[in-house]
Formats: sequence, C-alpha cells, structure tokens
Amino acid sequence: MVGGGQLARMMTPAATALGVRLRVLVEGPTVAAAQVVVDAPVGAPRQAEDVLDLVRGGDDGPMADVLTFEHEHIGADVLERVRELGVPVRPSAEALRYAQDKLAMRERLTELGVPCPRWAPVPDAAALAAFLDQVGGRAVVKTSRGGYDGKGVRVVDAPDQVDDWFEAAAQGGPALLAEEAVGFARELAVLLARRPSGELRAWPVVETVQRGGVCSEVIAPAPGLDPALERAALDAATRVAEGLDVTGVLAVEMFEVLGVGGEPDRVLVNELAMRPHNSGHWTIDGAVTSQFEQHLRAVLDLPLGDPSPRAPWSVMANVLGSTREKLTDALPYVLVDPHLRVHLYGKDVRPGRKLGHVTAVGHELADLRARARAGADLLQGFAEGAAPDGRRGGSV
Amino acid sequence: MVGGGQLARMMTPAATALGVRLRVLVEGPTVAAAQVVVDAPVGAPRQAEDVLDLVRGGDDGPMADVLTFEHEHIGADVLERVRELGVPVRPSAEALRYAQDKLAMRERLTELGVPCPRWAPVPDAAALAAFLDQVGGRAVVKTSRGGYDGKGVRVVDAPDQVDDWFEAAAQGGPALLAEEAVGFARELAVLLARRPSGELRAWPVVETVQRGGVCSEVIAPAPGLDPALERAALDAATRVAEGLDVTGVLAVEMFEVLGVGGEPDRVLVNELAMRPHNSGHWTIDGAVTSQFEQHLRAVLDLPLGDPSPRAPWSVMANVLGSTREKLTDALPYVLVDPHLRVHLYGKDVRPGRKLGHVTAVGHELADLRARARAGADLLQGFAEGAAPDGRRGGSV
Repeated sequence: MVGGGQLARMMTPAATALGVRLRVLVEGPTVAAAQVVVDAPVGAPRQAEDVLDLVRGGDDGPMADVLTFEHEHIGADVLERVRELGVPVRPSAEALRYAQDKLAMRERLTELGVPCPRWAPVPDAAALAAFLDQVGGRAVVKTSRGGYDGKGVRVVDAPDQVDDWFEAAAQGGPALLAEEAVGFARELAVLLARRPSGELRAWPVVETVQRGGVCSEVIAPAPGLDPALERAALDAATRVAEGLDVTGVLAVEMFEVLGVGGEPDRVLVNELAMRPHNSGHWTIDGAVTSQFEQHLRAVLDLPLGDPSPRAPWSVMANVLGSTREKLTDALPYVLVDPHLRVHLYGKDVRPGRKLGHVTAVGHELADLRARARAGADLLQGFAEGAAPDGRRGGSV
Repeated sequence: MVGGGQLARMMTPAATALGVRLRVLVEGPTVAAAQVVVDAPVGAPRQAEDVLDLVRGGDDGPMADVLTFEHEHIGADVLERVRELGVPVRPSAEALRYAQDKLAMRERLTELGVPCPRWAPVPDAAALAAFLDQVGGRAVVKTSRGGYDGKGVRVVDAPDQVDDWFEAAAQGGPALLAEEAVGFARELAVLLARRPSGELRAWPVVETVQRGGVCSEVIAPAPGLDPALERAALDAATRVAEGLDVTGVLAVEMFEVLGVGGEPDRVLVNELAMRPHNSGHWTIDGAVTSQFEQHLRAVLDLPLGDPSPRAPWSVMANVLGSTREKLTDALPYVLVDPHLRVHLYGKDVRPGRKLGHVTAVGHELADLRARARAGADLLQGFAEGAAPDGRRGGSV
C-alpha cells in the first residue's frame, strides 16, 4: 500500500485478522501508519524507485501480490512500471485517473449518464464568465488536480476571483473546471467495494455533515432518505464503479437536491475517491465488514464480506486539531461513556487536521449524535466542548 | 506486554485505535505478535534483563506506563524488579501467583468460599490413594505449575498412573494436586475485567466446548442457562477477581453440575487465567468492547467499555493445525460466507496447534454454529471438513 496516513493505519487490524502481510510506503518513520506497520519502508509515492522497491520488498522480497493506495497522489508512469513487474495495481491507473483529475472525471461521468451538477471546463476568464452567465451568476471553481478537504475549491461570482489559479494554470498548473453552485438539502455518500471479478457490495447510503469544507459527522444510514433517492444514489455509484472499472473501495459523494416546481428530488455526484474514505469510518464499529477489510478483500480478489449495519444507527464524529496537545490525555474522560468507540491516528496536532474519530452505534439517533459529538469535543480540547452547531443543509 | 503469541497479536487493533503504544517482548522475530508489532524486542520472559529492557524501552525509552502479560510464565523475582523501577505490574505478582500455581489457587479459592470441586494436595502415592478412596475411585491429577491445553492434567483411578509425576516432583518438579472428577453437564466460562480502582465489568457467561482437552467452540451467551446459575457463575468470578485483587481481564472456567436428589444445579470453578482468554475471542466481533481493548483499558486504569453483546448469539470456532499447510490458501473458500469473521494468527502449522479462529454473530444459533464450524474446518483443511461431532456434556 502506498501512503502512511490514517487510512493505511486503520487497514492494519483487517490485515492482521486475515493473515495478510501489509507492506506500506510511508512518508516518514513516525507517520500514522509507520507506528503500527512492521514492514514500512520510507519513501515518496512519486519516486518510481521507492514504489518499485515497495512492490519488490526491497532486496529480501517477497514480491507483493497486489499494489493499492490510501491516496491518489501517484503517477501513471510509476503504476505502469509496477504493472511491468507483473504485479496488479488496484484500482488500476486507468480507473485512478478519474479520481486524480476532476475534468476527466466529469467528462467520463457525463458520458456514462451519471447525474452531475452542470459543469464546464474553464480554460480562461472568458469561459468562466460565460459559465457564470449560464448558471445564474454563481459557480464553484475547482482545480482539476490536487484538491482535498476544501482545498482547490472556491465559490465565485466573478472570474477575477480565481485569477491566481488561471495564472498558475497558464504556467503548467492544474486546469480548472466550473460547476454550478448546487442548492442542496444535504450531502450524501455511497461507499461500495468491487472485485476484479465484478462482485460489488455497497454499504447503506450515509449522510455526511461538513463544516468549513471538512467532514465533521457521518450518519449511517442517512436519516429519512426517500427509498427512490436511495436507489438513485446506489444506482449512480454502481454506474461509476462499473463504468470506470474500479476495484477496491469507492466513495461517491453526492448532493441531495430537492425538486422544485413538481420535479422529483434527485442526487448529483460531487466527488469520488477510490480508497477507504472518511464517510466509511463508521463501518469499523457499525458494519459487519469494515471498509478497510472490504478494500483488502477486493484488491486481493477475495469474496466480499457482508456490509450490513450491526445496529439501526451509527454516528461518526471527526476529531480535528484544536486546543489539546496530546489526545490520549483525554482518554480518561472520553471513555467514561462506555459505548463510545474511539480511534486515534497518532498524528501530531495541527489546527483543523483530522486526528481521529469517535463512533457511537445503537438505537437512538439523537442520543448517539450527542454522544459522538461530546466524545469528539472532549478529544479536541475542552475549549471546543460547547460548539456543535448542528446546522443542516447549505450551498457549496 | 510479555509474550508474542496470538493474544498479544490480537491486542494490536485496540492499541492502535486508542493511540496506545504497545511494546511486546517476543520469543522470536517471526512469532505471531512480532509480525504486527513495530516495537517488539526479542527476549525470554524468564530473563530479568530482557523484561527490564522491555519496560525501560531499551536505551532509547520511553519507560513503559505499565507491564502486562499474555501468559503467566514469568517469575515473581522479575516482576519485583520491574516494580522497583516504579512501573506498575498488572495483574500484580501477588495475583498472578494464583494463575501460576494451582495448589495456591485452590487453597485461596477455598478460603474465599468460591465453589470448587473437592480437592487435596497429593504429595505422594499414599495421599492420592486416600483421595481416590474419598471421591469414589476416580480423580483428576494436575501438576500445580506448567499445564495448559490439557497438558499437566491426567484422569486416574490408581496412584501409579502418575508415578512419573511423583518422581518429577521429588526431583524438584511441580507439586501435584488431585481433584474430584466432576460429572458435569457442560463447561462455562466467565470473563470479566477489573481496574485498579475496582471497577469491574463482566461479559455474558459463555459455554465452552472442549475436544481432546482443547477448546473447540465457544457459544455466547451459554444457551438456556438458568438465571440463578448465571448469577452464581458471575458471583463466583467476581469473588475471585476481588479476592485475588486481579487487574486486567480474568477468565474463570467452570463446570455446570446438575443437582441430584433434589439439590439445585451449581457451578464449580475449574481453572483461572489472568489475561485475555480463548473463551473471550468472540468479543472481538460479538461484543461492543473486545476483551483485548478491555484488558488494555483495565491495566492502564482507563474507564472500562461496554461488554454487551452486539447480537443475540456469537459462536467462535477454533482453527487447529491439521492437513492444510498455509491457512491463507483457504481464504477464497471460507470468505464465501460473507458473515464469517476470520482471524488468523500467522503461526506455523503444527497438528493441534491453535492457528486462528472464526466467529459468526447473529440471530439463529444452530445456523451460526454450522457456519462457524464449516469455516474453521475449511481453514484447517478439507480432510477435516466433515468431522464435527457436536457432542455435549462429559466428564473430565
């Protein structure tokens, strides 16, 4: 696996249970995954030799059975060289391209008939001005590459608000696209896994709550979701998985858009990730098979596990960097709630950084949300303890 | 933690989640835990310097916050030296003595009024002959130290059947005790955890099914258990935990004995273990808090988690060494059942050795037993696939 963050870290319990030897390319000797993976060579995902060494197992071997990733920041040229070693790359470079390049993704999804917000490539200010006219004067401009957690995304109502990006693009930086600023009721996510054989299993559709462009809370399943919309969401995600020939876990983030003037409600695909995803952390404690185990099974072409929830509701709250310097100091307080499931990533604290999550699983949704929020707030620091605003809905 | 077997291996997910750094003294560089623990110095539990180095963290530190164990094979002198470093030992040497020495255990449990089979120290053949007379001609002779998985236990009806053990005892080997051969309906186990502060939480009483002196299957909770007996079992285990001042996980194995002549049914304590135990492996998938996480919480004096089951029934089947040479070869077959939870220990295959376990969690007990058995049989080897005898009850 390439990448030594929390996703690789959370892969370890599943690998241990299944007797799968996990070798992880980590960015440094003390990153989240390096703390818990025995075979963790240090290297850079963009350095072909580092990745090839990972796959070959250094001088001692054995050669890996498969290469997979916890992020998309790896070049197609590197992946091609891995494939030349005879080692499958899952998801493939062809699939991964659509998770790396939002322009390519929008083009392909539109071809596949997957519902998307209106969008257009915007090579220059004139193109953006034309698009703004077309969608009512307000749009979301995105860099086609390199964005995450709200970075590389800007809501604009005039072309000059992304002048710096146009300049960067002209100098070889990422191309830009514009999307309509969808007015949505809430955000949903579909998480599924797919094997090379085509076997596909999806977890229930979840609601994701964002604050400041970062996922704050996930509720599984999405409360009160219209069954027709649920089917539409699962259908869209399945079409993406099959159309892009994804193997491993795929997360499809969507907007739930209320119909106006008698039109039915609908879902529009926002973003994709071809790896375990924050919207699926609840599955560790809340589903029969976690997204981490399912990803391992999928990329190893093993039969997929049952994605059913273990209880009516699961709520996951992210723990972000705030006032507390050492999160484990909060364990004596947060574990007082005997039902909370706590997951810390062993990362240095930086403001706003994802440092862990807390999951509450059970029967009473309001109670679970309060507990998960309280647990996350305690871990973040007492100063943050009172702040959940619980706002719903919005507009990108 | 001292000991590099499957119990230390299965401790790693809980340590990772809680952000607890686990340092494990392993018997060799490739044992079960060494494969998945980054900080795993090789050494011998009986070598004081190896254990002290473990606690000190070698030359680099940091000093451990607490020392705990996955087995009882560590000397009181070594533990005393750890305590002199200012590092708590949990469970303490005083408590651990009763898990190491069955004579001391029987004496103390009898003092505490915990129900036990009739028993006597048997220093020589004459003493054993007298005990046999007293209990109807049949007894279980045990070595006070060093037994596990049916080793160090022999059912006899004449003193000369343990002549070799008497000889060994005379030459400084372990002392012997004899216990009445209890006719029992089935075997039960109580698993609980206790903090230094005294907080104590127990999982539901389980039924353990033994084959050839080795645990074959665990059913949680014990089917059809009379509530009065359940209370008696929990009460006995609580008395043991408090009477011996145990910290961490305690497993108390018991016999369920049917009353004769109008007497009520009762439980008698058979064995103790002061660590996570095979009878609690079901808790990984079947309980809100696993025995491994609970042990970590308890020895770190953190609040204990909820031991409630996640579903009405959990069945765990052990995978023992048999005809299959590489267990992971069976994954494509065993994972076809999407509900099975598979746990492999990464150990070399030897006949009868515990190599892994399979858990099924759900609503239909008979179905879960069949699935768990089928999964374990597949992992053991196809030749074993047809053999579960399902026998219940018996006599040691």
